[in-house]
Amino acid sequence: MATLYTYAQSGNSYKVRLLAAFLGIDLDLKEIDFIDDEQHSPDFLAINPRGEVPTLVDGDRVFRDSASILTYLAGTHSKNTWWSDDVVEQAAIIDWLAFAASWVQFGVFTARAIVSFGGPYNGLGRESNETTLREATKRGITSLKILDQALDGQDWLALGRPTVGDIAVFVYVALAPMGDISLEPYAHVRAWIERIKGLPNFFPIEGLDDPNYRRANPLQK
Amino acid sequence: MATLYTYAQSGNSYKVRLLAAFLGIDLDLKEIDFIDDEQHSPDFLAINPRGEVPTLVDGDRVFRDSASILTYLAGTHSKNTWWSDDVVEQAAIIDWLAFAASWVQFGVFTARAIVSFGGPYNGLGRESNETTLREATKRGITSLKILDQALDGQDWLALGRPTVGDIAVFVYVALAPMGDISLEPYAHVRAWIERIKGLPNFFPIEGLDDPNYRRANPLQK
Repeated sequence: MATLYTYAQSGNSYKVRLLAAFLGIDLDLKEIDFIDDEQHSPDFLAINPRGEVPTLVDGDRVFRDSASILTYLAGTHSKNTWWSDDVVEQAAIIDWLAFAASWVQFGVFTARAIVSFGGPYNGLGRESNETTLREATKRGITSLKILDQALDGQDWLALGRPTVGDIAVFVYVALAPMGDISLEPYAHVRAWIERIKGLPNFFPIEGLDDPNYRRANPLQK
Repeated sequence: MATLYTYAQSGNSYKVRLLAAFLGIDLDLKEIDFIDDEQHSPDFLAINPRGEVPTLVDGDRVFRDSASILTYLAGTHSKNTWWSDDVVEQAAIIDWLAFAASWVQFGVFTARAIVSFGGPYNGLGRESNETTLREATKRGITSLKILDQALDGQDWLALGRPTVGDIAVFVYVALAPMGDISLEPYAHVRAWIERIKGLPNFFPIEGLDDPNYRRANPLQK
């Protein structure tokens, strides 16, 4: 059984746990204690020098980013469902993995990290939260407009079925209210979120079902 | 022939032009005038709502990020060289595409954008450059340490051959001096850069061969 290093509040870790639930994959979960900065401990850096979760170890294979872990698990466990054998479809999926890494991460992700966790824990560090929050909010709103337009007339982002591209974009978009960014204006995005929530074996992450949720933040002063 | 929307100083566009040169792919290049904000013109947003280059249009297929374009071109033009048919290898490559999107983009990329172009043009906007530069520099240096360790004892990042993962990480790493981040301490990184520069049909982007290069910046006050 592969080992997934994870952190309960990490949306990027949740992406992998969600795909594993959809595909019925058992993973040995090892929780990394972010409050204690365990992700930067020598033991963990020996596994993932990037100091990030999720990290997947499967025998002598190690994957250090949610995008590669999603691809690996989907591609090895279920042909042509969440990943694809066809390179044109692969590129279409990667187009949305890239959107998640750029527009979502440095947008709604960052706003949530600041508002609900006093972060950001990722990106450009912990300084200057006020300016960063303003920029992240602006970029988050633009990303939601782009998404809403992309989902106007189609059910899923990359292909005619849900793929890892949907999972990668979904998580922090659905958690946008935790960063004080409303999903109300984006009807197509909200319908797509409901479609994902309706998939068999779906389970939520903390905060997903409560727009007013704020985590008691042990790092915040 | 596919159309590539590009911008001369865009390292992300250069990644695609470089792969095309390596593979002997002819592309119809259309220059987007960033000085005139053409990437946000209605005509261009109709092609790529993200307002970014590179963008590739091949018949009715559109790819809106360098990662997906690299995958598409490599996968459709040359089996198992720069991309792979094998899902485990694909995931290993995507692990480095993700590193480029996260660690490189919001690190040495951002430092270059600020120091040499008065940006950033991407990421969290144009405010607060001093703080952003400090954070980007710190993150850039960490990314170079991670890379140097990864390249200790291996020639290429993902597999035993160069892949699109190498191209994706290479460009802004090699341009780090444009963001006042020295490559001097990272011998394995420098050797890897030389290996890429030595590949048949390699050509440089502006600033690549001159560590003191700064672009005369029309946007800077």
